[in-house]
Amino acid sequence: MTADDIRRYLERAVALAREGMTASKGGPFGCVVVKDGQVLAEGYNRVTSDQDPTAHAEIVAIREACRRLGSFQLEGCTLFASCEPCPMCLGAIYWARPAAVYYAGTRDDAARAGFDDAFIYEEIDTTGAERSIPFAHVPVPEATAVFNDWKRLSAKQSY
Amino acid sequence: MTADDIRRYLERAVALAREGMTASKGGPFGCVVVKDGQVLAEGYNRVTSDQDPTAHAEIVAIREACRRLGSFQLEGCTLFASCEPCPMCLGAIYWARPAAVYYAGTRDDAARAGFDDAFIYEEIDTTGAERSIPFAHVPVPEATAVFNDWKRLSAKQSY
Repeated sequence: MTADDIRRYLERAVALAREGMTASKGGPFGCVVVKDGQVLAEGYNRVTSDQDPTAHAEIVAIREACRRLGSFQLEGCTLFASCEPCPMCLGAIYWARPAAVYYAGTRDDAARAGFDDAFIYEEIDTTGAERSIPFAHVPVPEATAVFNDWKRLSAKQSY
Repeated sequence: MTADDIRRYLERAVALAREGMTASKGGPFGCVVVKDGQVLAEGYNRVTSDQDPTAHAEIVAIREACRRLGSFQLEGCTLFASCEPCPMCLGAIYWARPAAVYYAGTRDDAARAGFDDAFIYEEIDTTGAERSIPFAHVPVPEATAVFNDWKRLSAKQSY
């Protein structure tokens, strides 16, 4: 992929961010998934219009790309995001396993526009009880048993 | 909420993990969202059956809880997960803003069962080019412009 291709796909991701913002679908974020030199899927943020806090541009585009491929993996795909993926979207990217990610804005740009991306990155490094949303680990014996049964399962599809 | 309530909801989350695993829907993970002493939504992992890498138990349950509330926020809700949320689900939780999170298994339990949760937590602290999926920041002027326009937008719904 050439530098021109990369800039072109990032500009498309930003155009999607503007499209979603202008249509009052959600925040100003867009994403494009490319495979074999073709756009496989596009998305923009739909959090407020879909009333779905997980409907970030990257999640929307990843789900659509997977639907089109009939796969839960984005092998050989490249993801272009108008802004640095937040921890939720970073996690989704790692589970989908595309080949590479390019982004235009940064988590600090997003913070200056009023979004929590940088804050959530900071919270990851705090321990459960110190978080602004407290996380508590309460062991339950059956939780260990279900993992052991998964390990023993012969007919399973890993991911 | 009493310690008995917490254990009971966590046991329900683990029962959902087992239900999804047994039905070959995905990995052994379950989640329950509770509001005002009632179960608002439940979910189990559906990654392989839905061919959707984002269909973790927590994401499934958060989306269903938001659908039932007609809101992109889980105000006053408590989330119970059979295992410590991965970075994707942690991010989704921060965007949904429930009051608290309880979990039974840990990221290390998940790692021992073959899941990438702990690995993704480690990758967050690496810089873009050193990641196993390379992330590259390529500034594009329009990305800054769209954030500035968002800041100036009067009729917008923040999240």
